[in-house]
Amino acid sequence: MPHFADRLIDAVRRKGNPLCVGLDPRFDALPIAWQRRYGPDGIAPAFEAFSLHVLELIHTIAPVVKPQAAFFELAGPEGLAGLQRVLARAREMELLTILDAKRGDIASTATAYAEAAFGDKVWAADSLTVNPYLGADAVEPFISIARQNECGVFVLVRTSNPGGGLFQNLVCDTEPLYRHVGRAVASWNEANLGDGGYGDVGAVVGATQPNELVELRALMPNVWFLVPGYGAQGGTAAAVRAAYATDGLGAVVNSSRGITFPFHPTDPDWEQKIVAAATRAAEELR
Amino acid sequence: MPHFADRLIDAVRRKGNPLCVGLDPRFDALPIAWQRRYGPDGIAPAFEAFSLHVLELIHTIAPVVKPQAAFFELAGPEGLAGLQRVLARAREMELLTILDAKRGDIASTATAYAEAAFGDKVWAADSLTVNPYLGADAVEPFISIARQNECGVFVLVRTSNPGGGLFQNLVCDTEPLYRHVGRAVASWNEANLGDGGYGDVGAVVGATQPNELVELRALMPNVWFLVPGYGAQGGTAAAVRAAYATDGLGAVVNSSRGITFPFHPTDPDWEQKIVAAATRAAEELR
Repeated sequence: MPHFADRLIDAVRRKGNPLCVGLDPRFDALPIAWQRRYGPDGIAPAFEAFSLHVLELIHTIAPVVKPQAAFFELAGPEGLAGLQRVLARAREMELLTILDAKRGDIASTATAYAEAAFGDKVWAADSLTVNPYLGADAVEPFISIARQNECGVFVLVRTSNPGGGLFQNLVCDTEPLYRHVGRAVASWNEANLGDGGYGDVGAVVGATQPNELVELRALMPNVWFLVPGYGAQGGTAAAVRAAYATDGLGAVVNSSRGITFPFHPTDPDWEQKIVAAATRAAEELR
Repeated sequence: MPHFADRLIDAVRRKGNPLCVGLDPRFDALPIAWQRRYGPDGIAPAFEAFSLHVLELIHTIAPVVKPQAAFFELAGPEGLAGLQRVLARAREMELLTILDAKRGDIASTATAYAEAAFGDKVWAADSLTVNPYLGADAVEPFISIARQNECGVFVLVRTSNPGGGLFQNLVCDTEPLYRHVGRAVASWNEANLGDGGYGDVGAVVGATQPNELVELRALMPNVWFLVPGYGAQGGTAAAVRAAYATDGLGAVVNSSRGITFPFHPTDPDWEQKIVAAATRAAEELR
């Protein structure tokens, strides 16, 4: 299998856009007919069926999908079995997958999470979001096991939430914490560059802070960015432009609710609305 | 149900020690007869059965248990169904539970993780470890939903791993990052104190940094500490003494491998060794 970053480049080039569709299923937001069909005891199969249906609708449009582990976890072990099948189906459709689980722990525990994420044991995802608070020896098992499987990680650098700056923007030794994390990511990433010049250690950088996107792109020139916060959270296509590298690549831009739930549960034409939302986002980001 | 901190006080007083037994099952470390009985395709039932057996052996000795989600996740959705039953059995035995999953995410995603952790939907844990990197609006859904269920959270402040200081020890506005996080924890914790004077927002502070234990105890006088790193990671009973508040309460001290795997897989007397290791740790920490 090619290097993770080259697989990302290939996926983005084939579709002609860097759209990442976030799969964040919520029962109350499903089409009303689905809510009735599955009922409150059928949340796990409803989440799986809806996510698979979204894949059918968007797989010719978007190159990347990002299931959010929390929502499948809330549907219990059966929900997580559904997540496995959603990830497997995305792979069959040649969609690149980011498992958004924001894992982070030390030593053998980090190894266990990473072995679950990559390879064939549990999730078989192409990449995983990782929290850096525990430091280098906590992040390295994720990088190392991702590398063994030609997969990648996306390390949280500057998140898109309104309160993300509480610690991330603290000025430490003359520059904010998120820049220290960004420097570490840049350095981890250098160790294994693909043919396209990008590495396999990505960075999560929110679209809601356009100025920080600019400075972080300069700090991490050959790091792939995962940019959340586009669409529903208020980030614009103009704002995310700063995330791209000089070759126009280097960033995937996520939209979750804006693409998977652009309808009211009673809308009969919800499928058309999903396709239209994905198409519009793909064109805006082209 | 009483306030989380009062439930912790009660559990520690009843057993006369603050020992937390970490459940980190690993297939290769199981007694050889168990490895043969379950086989490589039976990791999930093996993890569940072994963890339940450990509960039988230690439930009269220790007040608190801490299953590590990563190892159960590595056994797939079936492993996570086993984790549910291990947590349920611990509750039946009146052991207080800490689900060690180090969750952290924003807004509605944090809410989904918290709803999975507390209440009856998925894990029904008494408390959860939480990563603070994403800031206050990411931690608050965990605190708020824990509170609604008379449960608690343990926020990572200063972790026990060798590289934990990479970001946690950066000096930000004159003091290290972990002290900023500690101040935030102290302030969140103040909002809901129990009858015993402690709150429901705990702090994870490693036993491997005794000086930091001393200063963090002074910074967070009525915060419960979860102290990892005792035993196998090198923290001593003398070092953890600094974690206790002036009333001798306020800290639970975790040991995982040191209690659940104090034997070689071929030892026939592995059960006695688990009981002896738990008894010795409980006496050291009394």
